[in-house]
Amino acid sequence: MRFLTAGESHGKALVAILEGFPKGVKIEESLVNSELKRRMSGPGRGKRMAIESDRVEFLSGLRNKVTLGSPIAMLVKNKDSQINPQGKDRIKEKNIVRPAHADLAGALKYGEKDINNILERASARETAARVCVGSVCKQFLSLFEVRVASYIKQIGSYRSEKAAKDIDFILAKARQSAVGAISEKDEKEMLARVAEAKKEKDTLGGVVEVWAQPVLPGLGSFMHFDRRLDSKIAAYLMSIPAVKGVELGAGFSYAGQKGSQSHDSIHCSVRGSFYRKSNNAGGIDGGVSNGEPIVARVAMKPIATLANPLNSVNLKSKKKGKAPVVRSDTSAVYACSVVAENMLAIAITEAFLDKFGSDSFSEIKRNYISYVRFISKTMG
Amino acid sequence: MRFLTAGESHGKALVAILEGFPKGVKIEESLVNSELKRRMSGPGRGKRMAIESDRVEFLSGLRNKVTLGSPIAMLVKNKDSQINPQGKDRIKEKNIVRPAHADLAGALKYGEKDINNILERASARETAARVCVGSVCKQFLSLFEVRVASYIKQIGSYRSEKAAKDIDFILAKARQSAVGAISEKDEKEMLARVAEAKKEKDTLGGVVEVWAQPVLPGLGSFMHFDRRLDSKIAAYLMSIPAVKGVELGAGFSYAGQKGSQSHDSIHCSVRGSFYRKSNNAGGIDGGVSNGEPIVARVAMKPIATLANPLNSVNLKSKKKGKAPVVRSDTSAVYACSVVAENMLAIAITEAFLDKFGSDSFSEIKRNYISYVRFISKTMG
Amino acid sequence: MRFLTAGESHGKALVAILEGFPKGVKIEESLVNSELKRRMSGPGRGKRMAIESDRVEFLSGLRNKVTLGSPIAMLVKNKDSQINPQGKDRIKEKNIVRPAHADLAGALKYGEKDINNILERASARETAARVCVGSVCKQFLSLFEVRVASYIKQIGSYRSEKAAKDIDFILAKARQSAVGAISEKDEKEMLARVAEAKKEKDTLGGVVEVWAQPVLPGLGSFMHFDRRLDSKIAAYLMSIPAVKGVELGAGFSYAGQKGSQSHDSIHCSVRGSFYRKSNNAGGIDGGVSNGEPIVARVAMKPIATLANPLNSVNLKSKKKGKAPVVRSDTSAVYACSVVAENMLAIAITEAFLDKFGSDSFSEIKRNYISYVRFISKTMG
Amino acid sequence: MRFLTAGESHGKALVAILEGFPKGVKIEESLVNSELKRRMSGPGRGKRMAIESDRVEFLSGLRNKVTLGSPIAMLVKNKDSQINPQGKDRIKEKNIVRPAHADLAGALKYGEKDINNILERASARETAARVCVGSVCKQFLSLFEVRVASYIKQIGSYRSEKAAKDIDFILAKARQSAVGAISEKDEKEMLARVAEAKKEKDTLGGVVEVWAQPVLPGLGSFMHFDRRLDSKIAAYLMSIPAVKGVELGAGFSYAGQKGSQSHDSIHCSVRGSFYRKSNNAGGIDGGVSNGEPIVARVAMKPIATLANPLNSVNLKSKKKGKAPVVRSDTSAVYACSVVAENMLAIAITEAFLDKFGSDSFSEIKRNYISYVRFISKTMG
Repeated sequence: MRFLTAGESHGKALVAILEGFPKGVKIEESLVNSELKRRMSGPGRGKRMAIESDRVEFLSGLRNKVTLGSPIAMLVKNKDSQINPQGKDRIKEKNIVRPAHADLAGALKYGEKDINNILERASARETAARVCVGSVCKQFLSLFEVRVASYIKQIGSYRSEKAAKDIDFILAKARQSAVGAISEKDEKEMLARVAEAKKEKDTLGGVVEVWAQPVLPGLGSFMHFDRRLDSKIAAYLMSIPAVKGVELGAGFSYAGQKGSQSHDSIHCSVRGSFYRKSNNAGGIDGGVSNGEPIVARVAMKPIATLANPLNSVNLKSKKKGKAPVVRSDTSAVYACSVVAENMLAIAITEAFLDKFGSDSFSEIKRNYISYVRFISKTMG
Repeated sequence: MRFLTAGESHGKALVAILEGFPKGVKIEESLVNSELKRRMSGPGRGKRMAIESDRVEFLSGLRNKVTLGSPIAMLVKNKDSQINPQGKDRIKEKNIVRPAHADLAGALKYGEKDINNILERASARETAARVCVGSVCKQFLSLFEVRVASYIKQIGSYRSEKAAKDIDFILAKARQSAVGAISEKDEKEMLARVAEAKKEKDTLGGVVEVWAQPVLPGLGSFMHFDRRLDSKIAAYLMSIPAVKGVELGAGFSYAGQKGSQSHDSIHCSVRGSFYRKSNNAGGIDGGVSNGEPIVARVAMKPIATLANPLNSVNLKSKKKGKAPVVRSDTSAVYACSVVAENMLAIAITEAFLDKFGSDSFSEIKRNYISYVRFISKTMG
Repeated sequence: MRFLTAGESHGKALVAILEGFPKGVKIEESLVNSELKRRMSGPGRGKRMAIESDRVEFLSGLRNKVTLGSPIAMLVKNKDSQINPQGKDRIKEKNIVRPAHADLAGALKYGEKDINNILERASARETAARVCVGSVCKQFLSLFEVRVASYIKQIGSYRSEKAAKDIDFILAKARQSAVGAISEKDEKEMLARVAEAKKEKDTLGGVVEVWAQPVLPGLGSFMHFDRRLDSKIAAYLMSIPAVKGVELGAGFSYAGQKGSQSHDSIHCSVRGSFYRKSNNAGGIDGGVSNGEPIVARVAMKPIATLANPLNSVNLKSKKKGKAPVVRSDTSAVYACSVVAENMLAIAITEAFLDKFGSDSFSEIKRNYISYVRFISKTMG
Repeated sequence: MRFLTAGESHGKALVAILEGFPKGVKIEESLVNSELKRRMSGPGRGKRMAIESDRVEFLSGLRNKVTLGSPIAMLVKNKDSQINPQGKDRIKEKNIVRPAHADLAGALKYGEKDINNILERASARETAARVCVGSVCKQFLSLFEVRVASYIKQIGSYRSEKAAKDIDFILAKARQSAVGAISEKDEKEMLARVAEAKKEKDTLGGVVEVWAQPVLPGLGSFMHFDRRLDSKIAAYLMSIPAVKGVELGAGFSYAGQKGSQSHDSIHCSVRGSFYRKSNNAGGIDGGVSNGEPIVARVAMKPIATLANPLNSVNLKSKKKGKAPVVRSDTSAVYACSVVAENMLAIAITEAFLDKFGSDSFSEIKRNYISYVRFISKTMG
């Protein structure tokens, strides 16, 4: 399985092609649309989110809602582009690079002095196309009971003290919260921080925790470094714009613990299945899923575009200047959580198809069942 | 550029083939050997490190020490294998899976009940082959003045309060320290924690900070999510055995800061070159190197093999059992730092060759100079 | 550079995303459309060709006709789908597999009994998306004077005795011929064969010769088997539906010649540039372009859908049956020649970007010029 | 599955790493060695073949002859290198490029004036490493009854009129012939041509036909052009040094036939399995294996190194010169046939693992059986 996305922030449309996805999977357009809507939600979003109301259009790959095994092309039109047609400069101070954006690095790399030609693709708008792909993967995973969900662990200086115990808890709490919080206190505090930052014309980042559960043991491999599931998940989550850190399970806090206290001891249930009482490993041992929930956290930096613009430089004149101010958000941590879920769903789907084949749902199901039977009967 | 590694922990040898590496690069075998030696060093290493004294043998790709542009095959013989020839079980309690190792997940995935057949490849011994590849990449990068170095930020509960300011500082301090520390206090404290843990028959993890400097702007791309340099670095660092977290620049601490305080403002020197006064971005904006040093941190979990073995389960009988005890280390954070340097060197070399071509050093040099001239004259 | 195509024969649209294509290349939509039109032309085409009038729509990647370096999404709507909306069966005898089509192999592979769900993607209609990608590549190559063209060598039992000497000849003759022939005699004979076959309700294949000229030496590599330019060209041409053979230069006739008679001796012009008096190698030595024109031939089997249907079998009942008859062509050799040109253009563009970088046209141009200067001044 | 090869013609050794090969496959070293020996056999081989007696050494990936699922590293020492150690020039006239070799194209590409540095890797000696990989794949395929074999169709001007009917015939005839011929007449004529050419100090090429049988339907896919089995086979066969043409089934002769006469009609046996009475498609329809034997032919050009050297040019002085004469063969068509078999075996193994998974033999076997049962019971 592989996919490509295309589309600029204010171009005609975002497009994704998902190739190598199995035949025979029922795909609900409405589920993709609700994921797209979630990506535009959360506290701290600016005006564009009101303008946008992303809807996917399937251009290929489906017949009567069921995948054909052929590449799935998905289109999300940019409504905004009708107001600001591409070709017209988005930013007038087109030579002043915005700190913490791709502007300067991109301008140098591509030999470009008009930052409009950089920011259009570097924009996080592109993640809408990834969400389309991820939503299709989520629907595939759900056929094997795998659910993917997330909640907001931290916004700005407020960090939740609560921890999710399983994915049902997350789905029950965070999915009901407009903020993606898992407690009322969290929700209240997070909203307050965002409101405060907005008032101060400042921006916030945060931390998102994303889960997949249940994930059967055996996805990924230690046989070669680039086939490890942890490596793939790290790559996929770090690729989300503004993400600056990724950790699995106990992550960075592992470093301060002793082995005797932190490692997850292994047990066997009366029915003969293996389990662990803790999940510091975040569901992955040796680069392979171990049967426990996959748990990852990502750190998002504050939004880079500030209403009180940062000091910067004019690419052409080399003189000081204030970074151009464009319509932006105070915080997009919630959006980040949605994208993180979808990137995780893609990573797990790829590992799943690597193990069970990818031609058709019925064949994958056969192979999956025979493996599950094997590991439960023969192995454990 | 691409590479494959092979070799089991107690097999005949580790092997790497590096393909797509440019012609005309002088490679010193001794520099590879000193990296291999560093990988076996540091406090807390067990007896095997004494047995081993890894030395690389180049089987192809060089003529008179200079690369031919052909695949470079490197061999590191396992001296240990002469003592314990492969074929003989390493672990006698071969059905008891060791927690926090790949044993159980690997056994289920591959339908294997003898964990000897899992652990031989899942072992971190494999990273010696990666270090060979990384050392060749380091020698390439040094031709463009790029240096890669690291230091130990944390071992167990001790976290250094000192921060490196540039790579010269790291090379001057950490490279002179047997612990990889950047202050005498750090060294003393870290040694004490390792000694204490060893006494307690316990194990420790830690945090490593790895740098590459100088890295010219323009490596990586935001044009597609999987071409981002941050994503590649995350994948490469997370693929190191026992690593559970990766962050760039301010990383997770970004999440608690406000945008106005944390983003790196951009300035222009009197000579007309761009710079930032801070480096919270860790040298990467929008997935592209921005000219500042690349700074990443990785979190390593404590060594999973304990002298006081963890509770576990017998794969065959399903009964409780103590994890087998094998010769192991108290801490391998230093080794992790060496592997992290080499994985970072590989990631940067790949991005470098993507931009400047990969046929021959002389051609890459021409293309590099013309780009540097372009961005310094025309762009900045 | 990489690309994905999507779209079923009677779905909403064909889509292609081209990723990794450089910034700063001017792309004329009209040139893409004229290639699309050529693909639908030639003698022996059926009614659908009249219905279709493919036009490309660029959804992303361009601003004011110039590439941004971002993925280029291209859309070709299926006009036909308005008449026969997807979801409705195209073929009523949906269980009778058509010989020489993907029907049976596809049905078994994907566990499908309705061949409509196979043929929609297996159809050569998909090549329209490839032509969009190829046309963009042709426009890139033309900036370096590289032209790609083809002519029809054989249709059915008639094989031209004439051989093209260079690409100017092909462009002057074949591009002016509705049949893609390079002589009046060829055109006349080929038209006669097609007319005869049509009358007999039979179908024809043929042989196409495709050229790229001038191609500078040094594209592709012998350093690893999968980096050879000949291997890539073989893969790309053999992937065209109905193609059953690919040869380069003297190809299969090489086998009957002696080395002393067939190999291209090397000479040096008074201006110091190397050349060969013959081109039996087809422009590639050791997997690397050698400076002579790239010359390849592809063999196309006769169209598989016959008006006098072949004997076949019902997938469900296992009983004999006549293959369903659908609207089809008598010959599509001309279309094949257009697709072959475009696949060759893609292959050469990829090898070109591998050597000279792929960020922006201006950088590629700099690198290209410095290489050309190097090989003409220093090397020859 | 993927692999890399390394090694120069007169370096220390050839090396291959095969990654992603399943666990639990018994590998006989002796079978690899006998393939290596076959590669050095056949009429027309020069003295080096006597010097060489290639033997594989497995450095990793096996335990007690059974694969571990880990990368398989294989080493073939160059005995010749002891006589002519690398570092010493192989060719003294190091600036005179040899026509029909990679010398000139390689020298320009890599900015190299000593052709010794080009020819060492461009040499067909490299195919010994591929044969190691291919032989491992053959042993895997044989567990599913798939056999791969070849015979010589043509040497120089002599073309056999006989055609193989199935792979048993090839194994019975060609494998018993020192020439790889399938009739006594063929053998006699081929030997005569080689003897004649040798006497004339000339060289010959030829045509090889390679088969795989039985190959179950469903390998490869038409869903994306680069997943077609025909495309992969074309790439793999064309990548063999000196190969200039590849065709499947009727190949180029298809072009002269009418659809009604050439297409393979489909039938159903009394036991309910599908078959075709002819195999003009060469076992592949729409890029997917159709259940008939895979049949491909490759055209090899005459050996490029002539004892009566060709006219050429001195890279440095630009003056005319005679190509250097090195020890070489009169014909290597037999070697080509062995390499072609092994490349075909690799291609089919990859497609096989794509469909049935690649973790362990036992899992692949389960998935394979369930698919075969499905297509024979449910589908046919």
